[in-house]
Amino acid sequence: MFAPRRIQHCRACGASTAYRVPADDNRERAICGTCGEIHYENPINVVGTVPVWGDQVLLCRRAIEPRHGLWTLPAGFMELGETTAEGALRETDEEAGARVELEGLFTMLNVVRAGQVHLFYRARMLDTRLDPGPETLEAQLFRENEIPWDQIAFRTVRQTLEHYFADRRSGAFGVHVGDVA
Amino acid sequence: MFAPRRIQHCRACGASTAYRVPADDNRERAICGTCGEIHYENPINVVGTVPVWGDQVLLCRRAIEPRHGLWTLPAGFMELGETTAEGALRETDEEAGARVELEGLFTMLNVVRAGQVHLFYRARMLDTRLDPGPETLEAQLFRENEIPWDQIAFRTVRQTLEHYFADRRSGAFGVHVGDVA
Repeated sequence: MFAPRRIQHCRACGASTAYRVPADDNRERAICGTCGEIHYENPINVVGTVPVWGDQVLLCRRAIEPRHGLWTLPAGFMELGETTAEGALRETDEEAGARVELEGLFTMLNVVRAGQVHLFYRARMLDTRLDPGPETLEAQLFRENEIPWDQIAFRTVRQTLEHYFADRRSGAFGVHVGDVA
Repeated sequence: MFAPRRIQHCRACGASTAYRVPADDNRERAICGTCGEIHYENPINVVGTVPVWGDQVLLCRRAIEPRHGLWTLPAGFMELGETTAEGALRETDEEAGARVELEGLFTMLNVVRAGQVHLFYRARMLDTRLDPGPETLEAQLFRENEIPWDQIAFRTVRQTLEHYFADRRSGAFGVHVGDVA
C-alpha cells in the first residue's frame, strides 16, 4: 500500500533513517545514518482481469477491507517472480476460482494518490465453475444491465467495466490508458 | 532494484525480521519479530519514451552502471506522486533534456528476473534541442539503419525499437505486451 515516508529504520542494519536527498539524486529518500543504505519507495502494480462468459462479466463481492461487501473485478498486488499476466491469472484463481484464458491487456489506470498502477486484462472464461477464495464473499456473472453500479468497490474497476461495455458495443477492443484522480 | 529477501530489520521499529508466511497469506514475507510489521516486496515500474523526430529516434549513451557506455531509450524508475506518463516525460527530460509530446503507450515488457515492468510511450519531439543530464554521456538521433544494435543497453529497449520500426513500416502503431526472459 501507499506509505510514503514511513521508513524509520534501516532494513539492512536496523539503525535510524532520515529523509534527505542523496548525492546524484533529486528527491528525498530514507537514508540510514549508520550504514548509508538508501531505501527507495515506488508505486506498485495491481493486476486483474475482466472475466467474460458470453454476454456476462464476472464480479466478486469483497470479504475484506477496504470496501468490504462491494463488488470488484478479480485483482490484487503483483508479486515478485511473476509477469503482469501471470499475476492477473493468479488473482482470478485466488479470488474467484475461475479458469480463464487471457485475451490481451485492456486498461492501465494510474492511481497516483494510492501509489498504484492498475492493469486489467480481458479474459475468456473456459467454464462457469467458480470457487471463491477467502477474500471473496461470492462471485457472480452479470449482464450489462445487471451490473450493481452503485456498489462497485473501486473507480478503476468502474472505469474498466465502462470501457469494456463501450468497446463491446463498438465491436473493437482497444487498450485504454488513463488516470484516476 | 530487485532485492528479494534482503529485509533483515523492521522499517517501523528496527528489530530483526524473519521470512515466514503471514496468516491469511500464501507466500513468505519479512515479518518483524517484535512489532509484527509485515514488509511486502513487489515489482517496480521503469517508465520511458521512444522520442521521434521525423524518421529518427533519440537514444542516450549511459554515463552510469549498469551498461555504462551503451545506448538506451530515456527511461528510469517510476516515482511515487506521478503517473506512468508523467514519469516517462520526467525521465526524457532528465536523461536527454528533450521536449516531447506523448503519443500513447507503446510497449509493456515484463522483466521477471529483475522484478521490473518496463513501460515505453511513443513521443513526438517538439524540437531537436538536447541537454543530456548527468546520467547520459551523449544523446543522439538515429535513422533505422544507423541504430547501434550491437551496443543497446537493455533487451526491453531493443524489443521496443524493433516494434517501433516494424510498426512504422506497417503504417499502424499498436500496444505491445511481452516478457523478457
